[in-house]
Amino acid sequence: MSAEAHVLLIDCPDQIGLVYSITSILYRHALNILKNDEFVDRHANHFFMRTEFSGNIDTTELLNELHTQMPPEANIVLNPRKRKDIVLLVTKEHHCLGDLLLRYAYDELDANILAVISNHNVLQPLVAKFGIPFHYISHEHRTRPEHEEAIHKALAIYQPEFLVLAKYMRVLTPEFVAHYPNKIINIHHSFLPAFIGANPYRQAFDRGVKIIGATAHFVNNNLDEGPIIHQDTIPVTHRLSSDEMARAGKDGEKIVLARALKLVFQDRIFIHKNKTIIF
Amino acid sequence: MSAEAHVLLIDCPDQIGLVYSITSILYRHALNILKNDEFVDRHANHFFMRTEFSGNIDTTELLNELHTQMPPEANIVLNPRKRKDIVLLVTKEHHCLGDLLLRYAYDELDANILAVISNHNVLQPLVAKFGIPFHYISHEHRTRPEHEEAIHKALAIYQPEFLVLAKYMRVLTPEFVAHYPNKIINIHHSFLPAFIGANPYRQAFDRGVKIIGATAHFVNNNLDEGPIIHQDTIPVTHRLSSDEMARAGKDGEKIVLARALKLVFQDRIFIHKNKTIIF
Amino acid sequence: MSAEAHVLLIDCPDQIGLVYSITSILYRHALNILKNDEFVDRHANHFFMRTEFSGNIDTTELLNELHTQMPPEANIVLNPRKRKDIVLLVTKEHHCLGDLLLRYAYDELDANILAVISNHNVLQPLVAKFGIPFHYISHEHRTRPEHEEAIHKALAIYQPEFLVLAKYMRVLTPEFVAHYPNKIINIHHSFLPAFIGANPYRQAFDRGVKIIGATAHFVNNNLDEGPIIHQDTIPVTHRLSSDEMARAGKDGEKIVLARALKLVFQDRIFIHKNKTIIF
Amino acid sequence: MSAEAHVLLIDCPDQIGLVYSITSILYRHALNILKNDEFVDRHANHFFMRTEFSGNIDTTELLNELHTQMPPEANIVLNPRKRKDIVLLVTKEHHCLGDLLLRYAYDELDANILAVISNHNVLQPLVAKFGIPFHYISHEHRTRPEHEEAIHKALAIYQPEFLVLAKYMRVLTPEFVAHYPNKIINIHHSFLPAFIGANPYRQAFDRGVKIIGATAHFVNNNLDEGPIIHQDTIPVTHRLSSDEMARAGKDGEKIVLARALKLVFQDRIFIHKNKTIIF
Repeated sequence: MSAEAHVLLIDCPDQIGLVYSITSILYRHALNILKNDEFVDRHANHFFMRTEFSGNIDTTELLNELHTQMPPEANIVLNPRKRKDIVLLVTKEHHCLGDLLLRYAYDELDANILAVISNHNVLQPLVAKFGIPFHYISHEHRTRPEHEEAIHKALAIYQPEFLVLAKYMRVLTPEFVAHYPNKIINIHHSFLPAFIGANPYRQAFDRGVKIIGATAHFVNNNLDEGPIIHQDTIPVTHRLSSDEMARAGKDGEKIVLARALKLVFQDRIFIHKNKTIIF
Repeated sequence: MSAEAHVLLIDCPDQIGLVYSITSILYRHALNILKNDEFVDRHANHFFMRTEFSGNIDTTELLNELHTQMPPEANIVLNPRKRKDIVLLVTKEHHCLGDLLLRYAYDELDANILAVISNHNVLQPLVAKFGIPFHYISHEHRTRPEHEEAIHKALAIYQPEFLVLAKYMRVLTPEFVAHYPNKIINIHHSFLPAFIGANPYRQAFDRGVKIIGATAHFVNNNLDEGPIIHQDTIPVTHRLSSDEMARAGKDGEKIVLARALKLVFQDRIFIHKNKTIIF
Repeated sequence: MSAEAHVLLIDCPDQIGLVYSITSILYRHALNILKNDEFVDRHANHFFMRTEFSGNIDTTELLNELHTQMPPEANIVLNPRKRKDIVLLVTKEHHCLGDLLLRYAYDELDANILAVISNHNVLQPLVAKFGIPFHYISHEHRTRPEHEEAIHKALAIYQPEFLVLAKYMRVLTPEFVAHYPNKIINIHHSFLPAFIGANPYRQAFDRGVKIIGATAHFVNNNLDEGPIIHQDTIPVTHRLSSDEMARAGKDGEKIVLARALKLVFQDRIFIHKNKTIIF
Repeated sequence: MSAEAHVLLIDCPDQIGLVYSITSILYRHALNILKNDEFVDRHANHFFMRTEFSGNIDTTELLNELHTQMPPEANIVLNPRKRKDIVLLVTKEHHCLGDLLLRYAYDELDANILAVISNHNVLQPLVAKFGIPFHYISHEHRTRPEHEEAIHKALAIYQPEFLVLAKYMRVLTPEFVAHYPNKIINIHHSFLPAFIGANPYRQAFDRGVKIIGATAHFVNNNLDEGPIIHQDTIPVTHRLSSDEMARAGKDGEKIVLARALKLVFQDRIFIHKNKTIIF
């Protein structure tokens, strides 16, 4: 039996009576609904419901009951509300990493940073300030599979629930990504799908855009094409050089990533057909 | 019996089982929920639920059943989804009026503009282009009560469900407002509560602010203090004169008003203790 | 001799003393500088200066003097501050057209709308309300060159300084565009370079983006790739269908286009290597 | 003689020929203008010009020459482009402090943080991570003048050019402020002039606003009424509690403060009649 707060996530093809069925089960268990959100995607005819509740539950029994009442295709997830265990992957840029370390130090991250892994060692002193293990796993003198295997081994020690690419500047192979389905979050320094790929600020400068942006997304097999979690933009003018755009963009990147992680770690996101439904 | 789509708005002090009770009634009536939103204000311990549904209903019977199941203090409103009847009040500025007339001409307003009333006649030619009755009711040579009485009489012909102050630049008396509780929407040309009162752009210029804004709100007894529906801001610099700020602000005003009206006319707003809950 | 206000636009490769040279000429002519802006693109090593001034000038003499003092590669433009003559091209959507007609009716456009040309006739009644010539030039039963030739002939009557594509939904050929170099402004319903081409809201919906946008740009040979003038974005969520995104985006489109046109018509834009420098 | 880059700031009542006079002096000294901006406030009839240049100068001689050519009321400031010396004042909140420490650690602040002073000791461990002196000067058991005198003494050691109130939650007396005219920058957690004074998020929550904001400003005698440097806003909904608004607002606060400091430390701001002119 567990009396802590829980988050229930259910999605399935839409039909009449779903909210009634689910809330009747919660009502019979005398659970106190703290927050409830539903959405029906009319285009896909798919139902999504997220419920935060408190009260004494037997998790197995509640899940069984829900599975009995819901359509067989339903995805049902029941998570205790607790901080997630995560590992950060970084390269050389400090702005997202530093921002996340500060939030973690003051318990504002809804997550435990178990370790930081980097293919360079320049960020080691920053991580050390916060007393967190830092693994320097260089990609030099290693094939890509060897490098990813080394990272994979380091991760095995920590068993993180999520990997956060906080400006990790190497492409991950589909094989690596497949180990962590919907568990890797990346920050891309453009408003996707504009400027996919390398050096988006340079691309933005060359195109003469009047807005730049940042996108946090889940990572899937196709680089920069996973489900988008959060995006924001910053107005720019001709006065900014490519480097100045990059500097201006960094503030956007760190805020967009932090906001997206909050949504992920609070179990507020459904992923459905490469899109996110966020409550 | 009515088979059209309806919107059900219920708010009451929070207690366990409200969503279950409401959805069980809708389920028994075999109604198809198109959209459902709930919110519990933890601070006020108050529950809000808005449901859009389709299906055959006997309105009286459904309301009776809901009143029986809900706590006695519950506010229950059941509206067919249909365009609202409205009258616009204006003075001399055309930007909000013109924008609303265009939206109405192309059926994008969720409302019927029955008439436009003004204390000046300069906007008559614009209104005439769209074939809508224009009432010029000058405030000159009339006391304030006489003027408002004349407006009140003109309104009596149309029996509008909402009055929209689309840059109506005269203060309404509490007596007038009392005739239309929560039925008058105003656009104020600042991000309230900054720059309450007259000439907010001049005030903004004098204060040297770096953002200006607009606020759409319901009108209550205290000028500029009614429940806020929607707000937006625009960045400005020292380069703008007070007049240029006013011009730049007009685009914000018309968009903010149009967006707020959409929310009102689609029955998406609860008013509770001088605040809005918007789904 | 002309005593009206003028705008002087000069750009050339950067060198020491350019501001001094230009202002010394203006000073000798006893001209009163109302507004002065310079920018040096360090990347391209190119100088841009825009000056608004008042005072009695002999245009030819002043231009001669400037050409003598400036480097031979300098582009020098001297325009009286006056409203531009323009023609609008539209298809079926009314939101940008209606917004521009309203601004024109109240002299807020810095331009004279000489005529509206459309490949459909649905917007004729709206244009008629404002007493502006409407040319219905259908693309049916005409080859593309024939259709463009018909438009070209209609334009010849008006000799407009700028063409505004206010949701004109046909691609213009390079041959047509070549007649109006840097004189055609288009509004594209996405934040370019995202979602180039047809149906950007559908593309945005399918990609699951969290922001949509609009881009006003000059038209060159490559569709959607001309110099960007102004862009803005609007946050969206999973709750919006593709059609709702399109509706939400329209407010952005009309404001972005109007803002861009103001910049163009006030001679505030330099075009240099497919980018805009805007003062 | 100095060959480093300099910033020249000149403001005075407007008259014909000012740009010409100033640029002719710079031209005679063979200085290379890197960036030049002017603005004339037509309302106040006041001229502002900021010039970044490189080249060998004798500062005293150049200033003398400028004073000879400019009107006697002109304010003329000539600063080498260099990092400013600053001291931070904080209380208990870490978000602005942490953000500035990180930027400083990676040389992105255009300033040297000489020390941090606080009336509480909770932030000492954070400051220690970055190896910067921390002065805990409690206000307990001290009168306000005694407390400010203690701070004043601590500051005397460092001789900072600017004081940054990075969430320093005590009101400074006019006597204290008078020691640092136009040298104290504060971050206020609302979009001023809305919600002046204590607990602005609580005020915003109670008013039911749909936007919250942050304002960075110079501190003068009247609390929250000094010249505004930068402001930004964040949209909020009824779903946020007062505490959640405060949390959401913190990201805005730290970015607004950092952006404002960049402008201050790069000598990009004129203060004129309680307003800022920013290039």
